[in-house]
Amino acid sequence: MLPVFGHQNPDTDAITAALVYASFLTRTGTPAVAYRLGDLNFETPFVLREAGIEAPAMLPELAPGTAVALVDHNETVQSAPNLADLTVTHVVDHHKLGDLQTNAPAMLRFEPVGSCGTILLRLHREANLTVEPLEARLMLSAILSDTLHFRSPTTTDADREAVEFLAPVAGIDDVTGYAMRMFVAKSDLGDTPAEQLLKIDYKEFVFGEGEAAQRWGVGVTETTNPAYVLGRQDELLAAMRRLKQEEELQGVLLSVVDILQEHNETLVPSEAEAAVLQGAFGVQVAGDRANLGSCISRKKQLIPALEEYFARQG
Amino acid sequence: MLPVFGHQNPDTDAITAALVYASFLTRTGTPAVAYRLGDLNFETPFVLREAGIEAPAMLPELAPGTAVALVDHNETVQSAPNLADLTVTHVVDHHKLGDLQTNAPAMLRFEPVGSCGTILLRLHREANLTVEPLEARLMLSAILSDTLHFRSPTTTDADREAVEFLAPVAGIDDVTGYAMRMFVAKSDLGDTPAEQLLKIDYKEFVFGEGEAAQRWGVGVTETTNPAYVLGRQDELLAAMRRLKQEEELQGVLLSVVDILQEHNETLVPSEAEAAVLQGAFGVQVAGDRANLGSCISRKKQLIPALEEYFARQG
Repeated sequence: MLPVFGHQNPDTDAITAALVYASFLTRTGTPAVAYRLGDLNFETPFVLREAGIEAPAMLPELAPGTAVALVDHNETVQSAPNLADLTVTHVVDHHKLGDLQTNAPAMLRFEPVGSCGTILLRLHREANLTVEPLEARLMLSAILSDTLHFRSPTTTDADREAVEFLAPVAGIDDVTGYAMRMFVAKSDLGDTPAEQLLKIDYKEFVFGEGEAAQRWGVGVTETTNPAYVLGRQDELLAAMRRLKQEEELQGVLLSVVDILQEHNETLVPSEAEAAVLQGAFGVQVAGDRANLGSCISRKKQLIPALEEYFARQG
Repeated sequence: MLPVFGHQNPDTDAITAALVYASFLTRTGTPAVAYRLGDLNFETPFVLREAGIEAPAMLPELAPGTAVALVDHNETVQSAPNLADLTVTHVVDHHKLGDLQTNAPAMLRFEPVGSCGTILLRLHREANLTVEPLEARLMLSAILSDTLHFRSPTTTDADREAVEFLAPVAGIDDVTGYAMRMFVAKSDLGDTPAEQLLKIDYKEFVFGEGEAAQRWGVGVTETTNPAYVLGRQDELLAAMRRLKQEEELQGVLLSVVDILQEHNETLVPSEAEAAVLQGAFGVQVAGDRANLGSCISRKKQLIPALEEYFARQG
């Protein structure tokens, strides 16, 4: 059984893409099983509960040389710790191509769309496979989640068309209402410790090249209730400073994204990050916070601006 | 117009894939134009003449940041010299994923099949595009060329099915006869200087990692007339030794592949290559030549064996 898994700190797209691609591969002759690389966020359990299914199991340690399929990521720092020893035979992703290399020709399917769900729907159509209601619901949820119901600048026409096709198959009449319930579930953070809150949607990146290269951690909290998250600013900043030291990072950021207002307020743990944000976005940092306005997409806005900034320094 | 190009030392797959993918992109809303990165081999002019079309122009120097589409390769050493400054937005390839990275999410389509022609036919079918006779002929020629008319171990069922579909569309009744005429054209090397003969289908590879890494050049001459090529062994060995010195390579090989007998006789310019071939293939070198038997695919047999050998040394 080919293991299929998304990135560390999995979001709804990473989990549902693993489930749907494993089902697709199995139906098309390659028996596969979905796994996850970490704890679920607060949105995905809602999606799985509504779909009536369990979360995939945690990925066990795999023997060197085991064939694996990746979804929703391709950079080794975001993948299984021993990815370099595994044999990647399939990738479905909508991120830029990073440091992945394969030992042999593989099946790679990358498209610049808002969600892996959109690519997976294409795979079904191309293979003339019926889309079952369960998979339709999972793909639709992934697209709504990753595009913040079409608010993110990563949204493409293909994502909108996919949702239009999938909603009736999934039996979801009120897509807007369903999306809102997903986002409210995601925002119900309860008494989650600050360390955990910071890591819910958190990825590491390397900026710059050679000796000047810097490792940064960039978290995003997408919420319908930013006041709650920003009310815990001091705790979160303390957690960011600890993480930075423990992981020997050069920078850590946490963007609190107001889904409904499409606004980004970013927490800034030290002068170092403040200087970079000023250089990259032309903003002033006040009270350990930077107003990044409508820059709400890490993939399409935050990371490219940081990459350009570090490239200019290099 | 998006420039589309295959690898340096283009073969029939690299040239025809650029032509067909440029046509496909144009028909699906992204105006594109095919280019080549080097002189044609002896097979491709036959294919283009039979198809009644001209070869694509040489790729001009492109301004940094220009968007480009790659076909039939992805490693920077095999691509445009300034690839690192260009913006790769599309790739169609059937090789293993190498050192390519992209600045933004891109359209990547890699499949472990015998030829880019097979992937391009899929793209047409998925997009519900009619396959025109010209493109059918080009894709069919690419598949026959890259798989040596299904003799190569890289051949898959998808390649066979593609040829079965394409032959009537292209108006080619006798596929075996057409393939033979292609291979004879390829073997008509005339008085090609040894330097040029060596470079007709030649690629650079990096074996091993870190300080132990070695750059090798590996040429393959697929021919229906191996006696002619091996008759020029001394000239070819001299050219290989010169190339090795000029390019500061650690090794150079030239495999003379008898298409019809499916046999590989490899020229060995020094003790260094002899030792590696012995370690990688367990063969003895006699008279500057190694009998590599039925190892006729560089991609599927020669390079993996060399990579494994260097990995064991590391």
